[in-house]
Amino acid sequence: RGEMAKSTQLIDNEVFRAYATYTAIVLLKMMLMSLITAYFRITRKAFVNPEDTASFGKGESAKKFLRTDPDVERVRRGHLNDLENIVPFVGIGLLYALSGPELSTALLHFRIFTGARICHTFAYLIPLPQPGRGLSWAVGYSVTFSMAYKVLKTAWLL
Amino acid sequence: RGEMAKSTQLIDNEVFRAYATYTAIVLLKMMLMSLITAYFRITRKAFVNPEDTASFGKGESAKKFLRTDPDVERVRRGHLNDLENIVPFVGIGLLYALSGPELSTALLHFRIFTGARICHTFAYLIPLPQPGRGLSWAVGYSVTFSMAYKVLKTAWLL
Amino acid sequence: RGEMAKSTQLIDNEVFRAYATYTAIVLLKMMLMSLITAYFRITRKAFVNPEDTASFGKGESAKKFLRTDPDVERVRRGHLNDLENIVPFVGIGLLYALSGPELSTALLHFRIFTGARICHTFAYLIPLPQPGRGLSWAVGYSVTFSMAYKVLKTAWLL
Repeated sequence: RGEMAKSTQLIDNEVFRAYATYTAIVLLKMMLMSLITAYFRITRKAFVNPEDTASFGKGESAKKFLRTDPDVERVRRGHLNDLENIVPFVGIGLLYALSGPELSTALLHFRIFTGARICHTFAYLIPLPQPGRGLSWAVGYSVTFSMAYKVLKTAWLL
Repeated sequence: RGEMAKSTQLIDNEVFRAYATYTAIVLLKMMLMSLITAYFRITRKAFVNPEDTASFGKGESAKKFLRTDPDVERVRRGHLNDLENIVPFVGIGLLYALSGPELSTALLHFRIFTGARICHTFAYLIPLPQPGRGLSWAVGYSVTFSMAYKVLKTAWLL
Repeated sequence: RGEMAKSTQLIDNEVFRAYATYTAIVLLKMMLMSLITAYFRITRKAFVNPEDTASFGKGESAKKFLRTDPDVERVRRGHLNDLENIVPFVGIGLLYALSGPELSTALLHFRIFTGARICHTFAYLIPLPQPGRGLSWAVGYSVTFSMAYKVLKTAWLL
């Protein structure tokens, strides 16, 4: 039990619990993009791997489903944008949570980032007219930047 | 030595050691995709950057190697799928390991995920007929989802 | 304050502080790729989403800006390469920092990786003739591999 107790110290810390909650939420949101991609690939019948179209018949009849579809490509771009932005949030956010911020400040960062990325997904998939998507991207980006500043100020050791 | 001792507390915890082992393995597996891409680019002579074909001659003779190749694209899709699925595993898995799960339960999660992703790579590269790749993807996805559920149940602080 | 003190233990450790510093730097460098992509999209007028070209006019006049541009695609490849290489560094580097390495050895790993990835970005964007980009990629890859070896040696629990 001694070691187990040690391992749960971090998860007992409120800032770390908030980090864990929001990180799990944004990573689950990112994982949802895989399901949406699969949904559009199946409903639009637009695949990229020949083995995925085997159930539609053989030879030429199946080949016509090896194509790109605008809706599928849109979800894939949203997914890649998630990777590009959520990976820095998860990495820098962990260091930020360990750098001893106030709980209220940390919650503000995590909540705004998570809200911005959820808005970004809606703005991308509906799609909303610009600057909807651009702004939601910039808000999430700025939050990560702000956390990185706190991390570097606290930890700086080159 | 005081600080060093503190820093090794986590790595002394068995669940964290298991997490470290499996995370290193799946990340190394993902890194292997870069080498496989390079191998296919060189053997299939299919490049995307003009500077990469300079050793094949100048002008038009080198330009013909600036092309896409089905095998290269297949490995790249496998690599991107790894990023989309291994990033959530690494992030959620860390929080899961710190949420105090039983060692046997944690090992079950890590082993199944790692096995599923190795199967996924083989299913993608051989390629195996569906639903081989789809199932191995779904198994890894479900494991990450199960860990996220435990994290949110333990840490929930919105 | 008890819990807060616990949460800052890791950040008090010098190896962890070095990890935090270099991880923040490479993740910020990766985030910079988004801004460079946006810069080239706007100056080259090369967009992928119809809603992004609405400010250039309606219908056919805006449609001609929905195109790929070599400079934009080059930055995007550099960004994806960052994701493929910096994600393993961040994940394996965290485990490495917790595995109790000597500070000098850890700094050597972090500094070489960060230097190599910055060189990689310059080599990709200028672009430098090969093997400039290839070498900088290989150096960063080897550093991550070396850290993974230390992690597996210290933590091994299958």
